[in-house]
Amino acid sequence: MSATIADEQALLQLAYRYAQAVDRRDADALVSVFAEDGIIARPGSVWQGHEKLRGIIARLNTLYGATFHTVRNQTAVIDGDTAQGETYCVAMHMLNSADGQRTRMDMGIRYQDSFVRQDGVWRFARRELMVDWVENTELPVEA
Amino acid sequence: MSATIADEQALLQLAYRYAQAVDRRDADALVSVFAEDGIIARPGSVWQGHEKLRGIIARLNTLYGATFHTVRNQTAVIDGDTAQGETYCVAMHMLNSADGQRTRMDMGIRYQDSFVRQDGVWRFARRELMVDWVENTELPVEA
Amino acid sequence: MSATIADEQALLQLAYRYAQAVDRRDADALVSVFAEDGIIARPGSVWQGHEKLRGIIARLNTLYGATFHTVRNQTAVIDGDTAQGETYCVAMHMLNSADGQRTRMDMGIRYQDSFVRQDGVWRFARRELMVDWVENTELPVEA
Repeated sequence: MSATIADEQALLQLAYRYAQAVDRRDADALVSVFAEDGIIARPGSVWQGHEKLRGIIARLNTLYGATFHTVRNQTAVIDGDTAQGETYCVAMHMLNSADGQRTRMDMGIRYQDSFVRQDGVWRFARRELMVDWVENTELPVEA
Repeated sequence: MSATIADEQALLQLAYRYAQAVDRRDADALVSVFAEDGIIARPGSVWQGHEKLRGIIARLNTLYGATFHTVRNQTAVIDGDTAQGETYCVAMHMLNSADGQRTRMDMGIRYQDSFVRQDGVWRFARRELMVDWVENTELPVEA
Repeated sequence: MSATIADEQALLQLAYRYAQAVDRRDADALVSVFAEDGIIARPGSVWQGHEKLRGIIARLNTLYGATFHTVRNQTAVIDGDTAQGETYCVAMHMLNSADGQRTRMDMGIRYQDSFVRQDGVWRFARRELMVDWVENTELPVEA
């Protein structure tokens, strides 16, 4: 029983570490939560393996001024050294336009997650993004 | 001590499973997190028992295109085989209007929760919704 | 291992109890989660010690009709009887204007947290607010 709780806690911390790595633009931290052949997938796009995953950080640097990934509900079913789960997230993306207006684009995401335990350490095998909604908000000029 | 953590984790997972059941419109999953005579209550409305609770799924199908219940802070006090707690949630409701405009209605809810353990399994005895605020957001046309 | 989970759970519950104390305007509950010389800091402002921290509740009573602190991702590194962590929060503040318009001001906060264990109980040694974004939303008149 307590082993299961330790596992559940580890899987949730993976989602938190993923958010922190992305929001801090830390490629080393990002790949550390993925298996060597780990995958991030969206409809039409797949990034597989640590080198491809590192490229996501460069991509974020180009697209967004800042991001803020708030992780919510995670339900996971653990089966030995693998696990399947769903993790809710509202991912906020700060956009800076030429005229100084700040916009926040929020995405409601349900990550369809596969996890694998290797040498006793849980990592993502695959994160597939299901985006339920997108919202754009104009932020006040002074924040 | 670890028994308490297992209990706390179980109560939080109940709130997550409730959200997942509602968002997936899965009546079997919904009633599985409630005691046989379990209750959902709002000011002016009470649904008691599995048959009434199943009716909530039909109701959601009529009212909303999709929902997205993000569960937050849960504080609970466990006393033997019962527990009392408060669970924060921002519940998002997607509305589709005739002219194709998508609107998201968010509700800030503090569920006043009572839990009961029967045959070793925690379930909701009662969830009472306290809605602190409602917000309507028009979503961008293409999402 | 299970000791670490108990510690992690205790640190997260501290963040939840902080939110609940602030949202309920309960000064006793607020100081109970801080060490005697505990600190809340923001750029340009520091409140240290239980008496100063109690003043925050009075300040909230003046400024806001209600607040709703939703706690998210917490990552913490525990080292004996101290810990360092980051806690995400979206803090919602309800403002009532003279003409009856209700506005919600949301703040995206990453608390930089230091924790200390004294007599076996974890408390905040210091919470420093890093505010990433602010959003103002006009709420519908009837909620």
